[in-house]
Amino acid sequence: MEPLFLRACRGEVTERAPLWLMRQAGRYLPEYREVRKGVSFLELCKNPKLAAEVTLQPIRRFGFDAAILFSDLLVPLEAMGLEVEFTEQGPRLPAPLRAPADLARVSRFDPAARTGFVLETIQAARRELGDTPLIGFAGAPFTVATYAIEGKTAKNFSETKKLFYREPEAAHRLLALIGEATRDYLLAQIRAGAQAVQLFDSWVGVLSAEDFETYALPPTAALVAELRGAGVPVIYFGNGAAAILDRVGRVGAPVYGVDWRVPIDEARAKLGNAAAVQGNLDPSTLLGPIDEIERRARDVVRRGGKRGHIFNLGHGIYPETPIEAVQALVAAVRAA
Amino acid sequence: MEPLFLRACRGEVTERAPLWLMRQAGRYLPEYREVRKGVSFLELCKNPKLAAEVTLQPIRRFGFDAAILFSDLLVPLEAMGLEVEFTEQGPRLPAPLRAPADLARVSRFDPAARTGFVLETIQAARRELGDTPLIGFAGAPFTVATYAIEGKTAKNFSETKKLFYREPEAAHRLLALIGEATRDYLLAQIRAGAQAVQLFDSWVGVLSAEDFETYALPPTAALVAELRGAGVPVIYFGNGAAAILDRVGRVGAPVYGVDWRVPIDEARAKLGNAAAVQGNLDPSTLLGPIDEIERRARDVVRRGGKRGHIFNLGHGIYPETPIEAVQALVAAVRAA
Repeated sequence: MEPLFLRACRGEVTERAPLWLMRQAGRYLPEYREVRKGVSFLELCKNPKLAAEVTLQPIRRFGFDAAILFSDLLVPLEAMGLEVEFTEQGPRLPAPLRAPADLARVSRFDPAARTGFVLETIQAARRELGDTPLIGFAGAPFTVATYAIEGKTAKNFSETKKLFYREPEAAHRLLALIGEATRDYLLAQIRAGAQAVQLFDSWVGVLSAEDFETYALPPTAALVAELRGAGVPVIYFGNGAAAILDRVGRVGAPVYGVDWRVPIDEARAKLGNAAAVQGNLDPSTLLGPIDEIERRARDVVRRGGKRGHIFNLGHGIYPETPIEAVQALVAAVRAA
Repeated sequence: MEPLFLRACRGEVTERAPLWLMRQAGRYLPEYREVRKGVSFLELCKNPKLAAEVTLQPIRRFGFDAAILFSDLLVPLEAMGLEVEFTEQGPRLPAPLRAPADLARVSRFDPAARTGFVLETIQAARRELGDTPLIGFAGAPFTVATYAIEGKTAKNFSETKKLFYREPEAAHRLLALIGEATRDYLLAQIRAGAQAVQLFDSWVGVLSAEDFETYALPPTAALVAELRGAGVPVIYFGNGAAAILDRVGRVGAPVYGVDWRVPIDEARAKLGNAAAVQGNLDPSTLLGPIDEIERRARDVVRRGGKRGHIFNLGHGIYPETPIEAVQALVAAVRAA
């Protein structure tokens, strides 16, 4: 029988909700922190042996129903030609794209040549994963564009919107180019062994409904359509987009990740025609007492329903999350 | 005839939408930056003559239809007994509230004794404002509580939610206490001359629907009910709350400020029974070209409708906003 996660992605009824957590390979795990003692974040992303190892860590410890590639949203942007640094304050791009002429500095790329380490990580992880499916990922075009334009994690995303409003033709060209590069990159991940792919639209929540429809939606919908052709589930996670889920549903993904702001049954109704939804426990819940974790996990399972629900957090797990909280969550979801 | 702004607040049909901008007294104005050369932010808040002056500056320059008191969300928290500092990185509270016992360090306060400078600012501004109404303000209980608990502008609000989940009784006590102190404070502002009051719930968008209903809604609804008894319009602005406007409508305010994420006609429908709505142009629009500012301003005016709409931004105006952009906005809203 196909793994639980893949069946839920296809909108099937499953005996229980499959479970994985965004950022499950990360700093809340002592074994991850141990690996990070020896290497920088970017070195870890570019070392297939170590990246595969941290991809596997949460599967070994918790037996999650899916693994997700350990990598970073900015990897393909670097491959497109932009210099990327990782500092204590987060990513920095010393030469962001601020004018139409700057677009000459980015291009599509050959994933095997420029991001071979990602494909090798996928292959290495798959060799160890057995029946557990592996999710590949990338940023959605809008979110990747914000890094290219802002040069960092922005506050108000003023530079991005300034470029959009002042140079709409260049903005659309950049978004389309990122979409095409991301398509090549994710199709290569799928060929290397990724059994599903997730698009993270981490910053889409800063857009008005009109700007979402004008700038974020077209390149994302085009990308999703092409990825669907590869025959694996495509998950679109629009962080902070709970206010405009009716528009988000037009991305055309079979599976939608949902943040924690609205109950997942309401989110599913607003999305319209999704085969499956993924989410959506507030990651802060895991900082609270065990009985509250259990109660809220059961509530998400109940609202998610039996058909096409993948249990997840509504955002990446926080680094300060206690291991015992994750254990309690896993047990509660399995028992619900 | 009553001023346009007050009539719109009461849900009346107005000949045009009254207009003011959140943070209209602020750094985008050269005359504000001039005043700030001589004093720190906190000194400015505590100097009635200068605070009244910067309250008036945007009225003199643009003839906005309402003035808003120049002050800060943290002023009443300091009056409740917490030390507050303002740094380059924003506000800092060296001794935040992290445990039930810490609540002994905060209490209600006499607004005249502890925040007399605010009341004097209101009186001084009113003497100069003529027919232009003056809006008083405070933070909503949840948002003020986040500063008390986090000690700064937080990222994930983990400390706040940790206290809520681990010590719900203390959390409710703190929120109720802040609500009572805020009631005293705003009633004093109204007695001093404020003709409307706005509650800023700047961080409410980090809450799930359940947490909003459990923690933020009860003290806010109680506060709004008491303020309504004072006979002036009460505006509730829930920033980032566009996803849960159906719940936000239960705050019971006659007027709701709306952020820019959903079109204001959709927001009004979701809020249910509001007399008036206020908003909601994306402040980033003002960084774009004039024709785009005009087009989007007209769209907000059209969606806002003739009855009970106050034009505003969906968030505070950004410091880098050009003066010419504000001029174009004012002209477009008046002509629409």
